[in-house]
Amino acid sequence: MAEYQASKDEKELEINDLASLEPLVKARMEPGAFGYIQGGAETEWTMRENTAAFDHAQIVPRVLRNLENPDLHTKLWDMELNTPMIDAPAAAHGLLHINGESETAEAMADEGSIMSISTYANERVADIAKAGHGGPQFFQLYMSNDNGFNHWILDQAVASGVKAIILTADASLGGYREADVKTGFSFPLPMVNLADYSASDNSGEGLNIMEIYAKAKRTLSLADIDAIASYTKLPVIVKGIQSPDDAMLAIGAGAKGIWVSNHGGRQLDGGPASFDVLPVIAKAVNHEVPIIFDSGIRRGEHAFKALASGADLVAFARPLFYGLNLGGVAGVRSVMQHFNHELQITMQLAGTKTIDEVKHNQLMWRQVY
Amino acid sequence: MAEYQASKDEKELEINDLASLEPLVKARMEPGAFGYIQGGAETEWTMRENTAAFDHAQIVPRVLRNLENPDLHTKLWDMELNTPMIDAPAAAHGLLHINGESETAEAMADEGSIMSISTYANERVADIAKAGHGGPQFFQLYMSNDNGFNHWILDQAVASGVKAIILTADASLGGYREADVKTGFSFPLPMVNLADYSASDNSGEGLNIMEIYAKAKRTLSLADIDAIASYTKLPVIVKGIQSPDDAMLAIGAGAKGIWVSNHGGRQLDGGPASFDVLPVIAKAVNHEVPIIFDSGIRRGEHAFKALASGADLVAFARPLFYGLNLGGVAGVRSVMQHFNHELQITMQLAGTKTIDEVKHNQLMWRQVY
Amino acid sequence: MAEYQASKDEKELEINDLASLEPLVKARMEPGAFGYIQGGAETEWTMRENTAAFDHAQIVPRVLRNLENPDLHTKLWDMELNTPMIDAPAAAHGLLHINGESETAEAMADEGSIMSISTYANERVADIAKAGHGGPQFFQLYMSNDNGFNHWILDQAVASGVKAIILTADASLGGYREADVKTGFSFPLPMVNLADYSASDNSGEGLNIMEIYAKAKRTLSLADIDAIASYTKLPVIVKGIQSPDDAMLAIGAGAKGIWVSNHGGRQLDGGPASFDVLPVIAKAVNHEVPIIFDSGIRRGEHAFKALASGADLVAFARPLFYGLNLGGVAGVRSVMQHFNHELQITMQLAGTKTIDEVKHNQLMWRQVY
Amino acid sequence: MAEYQASKDEKELEINDLASLEPLVKARMEPGAFGYIQGGAETEWTMRENTAAFDHAQIVPRVLRNLENPDLHTKLWDMELNTPMIDAPAAAHGLLHINGESETAEAMADEGSIMSISTYANERVADIAKAGHGGPQFFQLYMSNDNGFNHWILDQAVASGVKAIILTADASLGGYREADVKTGFSFPLPMVNLADYSASDNSGEGLNIMEIYAKAKRTLSLADIDAIASYTKLPVIVKGIQSPDDAMLAIGAGAKGIWVSNHGGRQLDGGPASFDVLPVIAKAVNHEVPIIFDSGIRRGEHAFKALASGADLVAFARPLFYGLNLGGVAGVRSVMQHFNHELQITMQLAGTKTIDEVKHNQLMWRQVY
Repeated sequence: MAEYQASKDEKELEINDLASLEPLVKARMEPGAFGYIQGGAETEWTMRENTAAFDHAQIVPRVLRNLENPDLHTKLWDMELNTPMIDAPAAAHGLLHINGESETAEAMADEGSIMSISTYANERVADIAKAGHGGPQFFQLYMSNDNGFNHWILDQAVASGVKAIILTADASLGGYREADVKTGFSFPLPMVNLADYSASDNSGEGLNIMEIYAKAKRTLSLADIDAIASYTKLPVIVKGIQSPDDAMLAIGAGAKGIWVSNHGGRQLDGGPASFDVLPVIAKAVNHEVPIIFDSGIRRGEHAFKALASGADLVAFARPLFYGLNLGGVAGVRSVMQHFNHELQITMQLAGTKTIDEVKHNQLMWRQVY
Repeated sequence: MAEYQASKDEKELEINDLASLEPLVKARMEPGAFGYIQGGAETEWTMRENTAAFDHAQIVPRVLRNLENPDLHTKLWDMELNTPMIDAPAAAHGLLHINGESETAEAMADEGSIMSISTYANERVADIAKAGHGGPQFFQLYMSNDNGFNHWILDQAVASGVKAIILTADASLGGYREADVKTGFSFPLPMVNLADYSASDNSGEGLNIMEIYAKAKRTLSLADIDAIASYTKLPVIVKGIQSPDDAMLAIGAGAKGIWVSNHGGRQLDGGPASFDVLPVIAKAVNHEVPIIFDSGIRRGEHAFKALASGADLVAFARPLFYGLNLGGVAGVRSVMQHFNHELQITMQLAGTKTIDEVKHNQLMWRQVY
Repeated sequence: MAEYQASKDEKELEINDLASLEPLVKARMEPGAFGYIQGGAETEWTMRENTAAFDHAQIVPRVLRNLENPDLHTKLWDMELNTPMIDAPAAAHGLLHINGESETAEAMADEGSIMSISTYANERVADIAKAGHGGPQFFQLYMSNDNGFNHWILDQAVASGVKAIILTADASLGGYREADVKTGFSFPLPMVNLADYSASDNSGEGLNIMEIYAKAKRTLSLADIDAIASYTKLPVIVKGIQSPDDAMLAIGAGAKGIWVSNHGGRQLDGGPASFDVLPVIAKAVNHEVPIIFDSGIRRGEHAFKALASGADLVAFARPLFYGLNLGGVAGVRSVMQHFNHELQITMQLAGTKTIDEVKHNQLMWRQVY
Repeated sequence: MAEYQASKDEKELEINDLASLEPLVKARMEPGAFGYIQGGAETEWTMRENTAAFDHAQIVPRVLRNLENPDLHTKLWDMELNTPMIDAPAAAHGLLHINGESETAEAMADEGSIMSISTYANERVADIAKAGHGGPQFFQLYMSNDNGFNHWILDQAVASGVKAIILTADASLGGYREADVKTGFSFPLPMVNLADYSASDNSGEGLNIMEIYAKAKRTLSLADIDAIASYTKLPVIVKGIQSPDDAMLAIGAGAKGIWVSNHGGRQLDGGPASFDVLPVIAKAVNHEVPIIFDSGIRRGEHAFKALASGADLVAFARPLFYGLNLGGVAGVRSVMQHFNHELQITMQLAGTKTIDEVKHNQLMWRQVY
């Protein structure tokens, strides 16, 4: 692991608000690595809009509804979850903490939520799965242009007991991340799942984001959904959907879940905020399969608004990363607990006792589009 | 009262505009106490939007209407009022002035307006009522999960001659006020009505806002309206309404008044500005019961716009608090007189001679929602 | 004239843009007097919006229209004018220049435009008229609650040959100008027309704006239109119209012109930008009488947009004041010439050869209201 | 060429983003010349809005479309182009680089794109054409009020083999560029095509923009289209169209192409962003002739959005100017390659393989107009 110094901290965090974590992390991390984690594509308009767009709709509070202790429990298929907020897949947890994905996985399992394991993890899939001690996990596939690799890594995911495969549909190449070009960031740590499969020079260590993506399959297609499903016998969730047409096409091609996301504003700049496209996608999907939503969620209020706009689960990565960096397993748990706390307050004050009631809440939308 | 030093000032204020009072008060008060008074929930988006939203509608001035000396007199039920602007209920006037609620009550009575007494006052209900020397008063009930307390405090309110009970519907728990967490604010003064009822450690002194709300009834319901009305034989006004459905449900359950408010942005963040929901609520209520409006009013112009959008009375607390802090009884009166002055100028220039004419004025609304 | 030192400068100005004049004038004038000239009512929202609202509509340029030397000539009734841009009535030109209204009048006549003489001028109506050497003039009446004064001053206006009487409808009292209260501004110069009529202590000298307006007729009514018309045998233009209903009522009551204005944002704050109400008023008036427009015009582009939205003439006062202060007669002429120059460029580039063609141009309006 | 020192640099540029080039150029150039290149008319509202308006519409990314290596090749009439992004005509390349238009022409030809030669070039048409070594070129005519000049310069353009004549319709006079007035900018270099035609004092050297335009034909008309077409036997593209009516009139008068442009915000200020009028013009034109679009494009994303809104080709000048200044031929090529690179990334991530597919992409438009 050369000279890169990741955090070794293990501690609970006192969190006032999640936005205040980012400057703390920025002050501790190597600028290039922090920039890679925090930044987005090109002008970062879409990245900024992702969070700003939650102000495009307001929650109309309902009162006198005989309500206490709002219940965050929910289900995805037959999985019981303590919260509708889950871990969004993200590469390279090792940049944040010396123990990388294992600590995130342990924390998410502790919290009764879902861990998403990225192809570009810094730890082996089996090790991450083991650290998750029985909690539900997804495996996120970045398809390679070498189908042998795809089979090899999916074999490991299946063997590790993941509940679903996330097909990353919005990253047929890497978004143009100008900040990373400016800092000259390259990955200081190996992506061990790449390294295990092939020669050591293929681990990603020392490569920049463009070079990593050079191995990605560009010609992703609807046929990949069924190919993965048939090979793994697992449900495939298509991640990176921003249009209702693509949602319906993916379902028609065998997708068992739709993940509405613009990759946190890290891929296509100039696209809409993910929240702004959610309602129309949800209307098209019409509960045929579950919808998971990410991109821009930084508060319990945002999670509420996404759930009220058609999401069945919501996900985020950067806030968990900041918890991981500042406090390891306990830090990730602190972030999850803070999100849960904010969502519960919002639910109580909005007059919604269950996640199902949140989903039936009618937001008051501004005239933007 | 330990070491907390509240203002003892008694003087008339020269007020140029109400916005200029806030920095004066900030400079005098203990930061935690000031933050509690001034602040809102979470990001304070809703709090800021409450005032900003008055720019969503404009007053189209009417001219040559043979008008002078616009008349602020109005009525609520059979109460004659000198002004449509009243005191919004708020806890802990003692933070602002050593004589607390008594001075606010005296001033509101002097001005021919209504004083609202909070459950969380720093003075006894009977003492506040007495200080109000015959002026009309409301009692604002924060329901406890101990119904004995509810009856005990309502008995006092009835005995003190209040004209109505305000049921606080939007505070089944305390909003998440990050500023208070940051300052570590806890109430430095006892809430004597709590203390009188039970053991001294229950007074609220030394507790933070979350701890105070721990005693609140979370399971507020429509049935509470009739329970309070039956017990007190007084009209019940439901405060904290932001949706037309809740307004109609409350009226159906026996409410004799609807108080449109989002608690000054101190409860649910991410909700709409109170002004933005007023017209649709007013349309639903359709004059069946009176509507009182608060949240964000800082000028006579705002009061005019709220009255023109369906409110029968408007209320505010922070501006009166600032008057109380800077000048006691005379300070509160100065604030009321300044509001009256601004509203009269607005009425004259808008071509509206009476409050009834203000209510029939048609604002010019922007396309926001 | 006591100690107040007004400008004595007489010179042509090199004007790059009108916005750049304001800081030059500010640096020369006594702060209270400058604040009175420059400022608006209350928060000055309406004042700022007056100019900002010109960005609510865009001019779609038309090309290849065989056009050169756009012609600014236009008519009002039977008056031939060199330009559709005229002087808006304003009090106290003496604050800007030692020779006051006479210099403005001379310059406006030189430029073939209209001078508007205010009741609150610092010079006698006859003297101003004489300085205007035959150019068309209006007299702006601020009605007094002493009808003897109204007749006396109208007699002078008629004797001086003015072409119309402007009835100031939007100033039944003075707007609440907080800046003037802060600076403690009172008029340092006598309003000689007031002084001539009555005792010297009634001249306005040493009075603030509120005190001046104490003598104003508050009960302005539609009947005043005919009363003035009958007394003077002159057309009456009602100034301060912001609603189509008032425009139609005024015409019904005998108005021969409608002056759409919100007094430059100096009266009712919280009202719409004058430009935003112009189209709907113009639609109602439907060419029955001419429409004059003011409030916020600071560029030829703004004049074009107002003309294209229903105005027959446009007016402004502050820009002329700045010219008067910086250069006397020549300064006012420089301002007029700069406005003419900007309007001609805009007309040429928009593909409009005449003022009539400008009036038929269709702006592209944003969705604001 | 007197004392003006233009760049002599010849080098490839490392470009992170095009916005970062402007400050580099500003730091190298004489302020007046830089201001002339960079600035716009009057308040520069339209200039700023040109770029800002690209945020009025978002690209909804499509995924799983079996796509790689998006293809930028396209055609205009029978010309094969490597990219849909071409050089917009602009005067005085000599201000940027000592070799002026020749280097731009060479670079555009190298990149398989189109060079537009301006009447106001600093080099002879024939020399520029020669430098373009066979690449397609347009000649942009600023019509003179001396028709002899028009014929003389068109003869040269035809002799040089240009593919079309661009009739500059939006510059019957020069926009009012306040910045140039402030800097006192006058052209330090001769416009050799003017000088060749007539006496040396007519070259433009030492003249300001207003003086240059004094020779322009103001009475441009639809008849000029056919006159030019008949004289040259070349297709005429009308540049400066912002209204659908003008587009249809131009086509009716013989235009073989419509160039939607507001001259980069340098002519009429207060007009709409060029991007905001593109869709309605495209709808009117309905593919009858090709549409070229310019004004505000600074990223591949902008080019994508313009193509998706009805443009067949897009053009820009300032970014190429900056490349020319910083690196000569290689610098211009670097800029083109960077644009191509950004557009390709956007196409891949948006799920569009060809320029034709881009044109069928449906943007998500905000409610602005």
